[in-house]
Amino acid sequence: MFNISSIEGGLNVVDGFFCDGVNVGMRTNPANSESTDIDGDVGFIHSDTVCDISAVFTNNTFQAAPIKHYQRYPDNFQTNFLLINAKNANAMTGQAGIDDIDTIMTALDKKIDTINPIMSSTGVIGYRLPIDKIVTAFDKFDFTAKNSHTLAQTIMTTDKFKKERAYKVELDNGNSFHIAAICKGAGMINPAMATMLCFIITDANIPKADMDELLLQGSEKSFNRISVDGDTSTNDTAMLLTNKKSSAYNKEAFSKALEKIMFELAMEILKDGEGASKLVAFEVKGAKSEDEARRASIALSNSLLVKTALFGEDPNWGRIASTIGASGIECDESTLSIHYDDLLIYSNEFRELDSQREEQAFSIMKQDSFIVSCDLGLGSGAYTSYGCDLSYEYVKINAEYRT
Amino acid sequence: MFNISSIEGGLNVVDGFFCDGVNVGMRTNPANSESTDIDGDVGFIHSDTVCDISAVFTNNTFQAAPIKHYQRYPDNFQTNFLLINAKNANAMTGQAGIDDIDTIMTALDKKIDTINPIMSSTGVIGYRLPIDKIVTAFDKFDFTAKNSHTLAQTIMTTDKFKKERAYKVELDNGNSFHIAAICKGAGMINPAMATMLCFIITDANIPKADMDELLLQGSEKSFNRISVDGDTSTNDTAMLLTNKKSSAYNKEAFSKALEKIMFELAMEILKDGEGASKLVAFEVKGAKSEDEARRASIALSNSLLVKTALFGEDPNWGRIASTIGASGIECDESTLSIHYDDLLIYSNEFRELDSQREEQAFSIMKQDSFIVSCDLGLGSGAYTSYGCDLSYEYVKINAEYRT
Repeated sequence: MFNISSIEGGLNVVDGFFCDGVNVGMRTNPANSESTDIDGDVGFIHSDTVCDISAVFTNNTFQAAPIKHYQRYPDNFQTNFLLINAKNANAMTGQAGIDDIDTIMTALDKKIDTINPIMSSTGVIGYRLPIDKIVTAFDKFDFTAKNSHTLAQTIMTTDKFKKERAYKVELDNGNSFHIAAICKGAGMINPAMATMLCFIITDANIPKADMDELLLQGSEKSFNRISVDGDTSTNDTAMLLTNKKSSAYNKEAFSKALEKIMFELAMEILKDGEGASKLVAFEVKGAKSEDEARRASIALSNSLLVKTALFGEDPNWGRIASTIGASGIECDESTLSIHYDDLLIYSNEFRELDSQREEQAFSIMKQDSFIVSCDLGLGSGAYTSYGCDLSYEYVKINAEYRT
Repeated sequence: MFNISSIEGGLNVVDGFFCDGVNVGMRTNPANSESTDIDGDVGFIHSDTVCDISAVFTNNTFQAAPIKHYQRYPDNFQTNFLLINAKNANAMTGQAGIDDIDTIMTALDKKIDTINPIMSSTGVIGYRLPIDKIVTAFDKFDFTAKNSHTLAQTIMTTDKFKKERAYKVELDNGNSFHIAAICKGAGMINPAMATMLCFIITDANIPKADMDELLLQGSEKSFNRISVDGDTSTNDTAMLLTNKKSSAYNKEAFSKALEKIMFELAMEILKDGEGASKLVAFEVKGAKSEDEARRASIALSNSLLVKTALFGEDPNWGRIASTIGASGIECDESTLSIHYDDLLIYSNEFRELDSQREEQAFSIMKQDSFIVSCDLGLGSGAYTSYGCDLSYEYVKINAEYRT
């Protein structure tokens, strides 16, 4: 048995980890030297002892330079320093982008002893990092700070709010450990690794094999199930670091806590989905297989017509059905049924929406979040993914992103 | 040798075919009895002799009732009457939806002798056809009219303009035939059969086997290559009818004319893409295979981030590259190059966009149409699909569709 309780403080709650974020004047449009960006752009997570680390990365073929840099380290390497920047993704920058990280890390090592330092970047694709600006951060950093809020703010790009979580996990033998995370992500979120950065730290005495297994499993149940716009970025990263300062560990407890923290952060990303006003769970069940359920569920969370109907609060189940039918999975209109929350909105016997049920559906759709549940009536395959509506605001944000 | 010349008149140019469209007061929101719709909603194409017919239909599993009704006829059946309605898709209506067509056709047959009459519908999914209203059209129709413009207008849903084309094809032996078409489609357009209806008529003496082959081939080169929003409807249909009143036929000439008419109508659909302001060709070449080129090209024409960047006229090639990388095909950032029209915008040697080239790219993007050309530098596979930008207007149209 174990108890998981939410606590305040974000990354600060884990002993031995330090973090901070500063502004060195990087620009969201590197080609425009007149743009002024006042938000933070460079930050770090530092541990006073070396940490085991696990990571999952984007499956985009064009992985960004920091990911390639990470992958140069041997398996099971340990690190004590993670440098993070926003505004510039250091993606599609070739070998030069990797060399730039080495240059930056050499400069960093003059300020603080780093062991296998790693970097993580988000922002615009296709520009070299402004090395001169980034290294000025090293004079501004307080390497002994515990500024989780500041760092969570620093790594934001189009995010409207910062995302952090911390939990204390108490085991029944009286021992306890902590797990905490910060995360960024709002646009360009797609199942198969949302475009996001997520940094999770813990003091649990977790074996490396469990870290790898549970981080992958946690990603599958969280970031891989959310969609804002069906795009997958070059930089998606989720990392888990442990300094093992606590002797406590229990696989089931850790797994639960990790899944909880990752799922909650994934839902925060979705709520922050660019211009999103609603969070919708797309449950597909009764499919021939889990894979078929997954394909239909993800088709729903990515469909523009479904997303605009959500925004318009139009209880147009025809778009739901049509999207399932277009997903290529086995389905039959006579066995299909669709619910919005608990309201039956389509079944073989009940196809036309009368005005009373349309009103009820309308009330459900006015909520900040609700469930679209589709039972294919053919088998036991089930999968749930999570999406949001598509608003004018999404178009505005993404048409204007760099300017 | 042959000569294909564009002529005025739409469907009217083909002798022996008649068409008309009327308004019987069907509603875009069947649940709202107070909505008033003044546009036309029911029309027909009638031939004074029986015609051979070929059709290609949506690959959505939930094919609409009129498609199932069509498929009940034996192979190589002939017909002399096509009834068309807008406002109601007669989709997800089960057996009752098919029975309704039979009821309607029985009523129609009392007004005019029909042979294997077929129906085609577009509109909202999930409501039974208003049979009583539809049969009132039969008193309003002029069965000897040649009102192509009216019919083209009648079958519109969210279309902003009607779509018709006619060609005269002259063979070198002095014989000639005609080919003409009307088409509807604006939203919900996706490669793998756009959500559209297209009715093509001809007097050419074309064998049935050629009709089947050339209609499929024409669809692959036109409607299957356009994307407005990545959705595929329950009702997509392209039909080709011939009354063989001309003794003329030449396979190459017919194929060219058919491809031309279908491609031009597909481009009209794209220009009418809901809220679209630009038409963009996404050429992918140098891929390992044509299939890989196709996957990347279609990913580009469907990407929300690419589409919003087009709307914002932001020469952000990073979104192009990222979408290719996310499409799962083999690609390499060192062999990739990207052009906007003739402007090199990315290559291994030229990654960062300086302000001069950004200005040039900006001018290209201001055009009504341009080409995004991506050379993967890996093989000889090539494919071009066609897309449009995503604007505030798209969201508005689709959030408000039924109300």
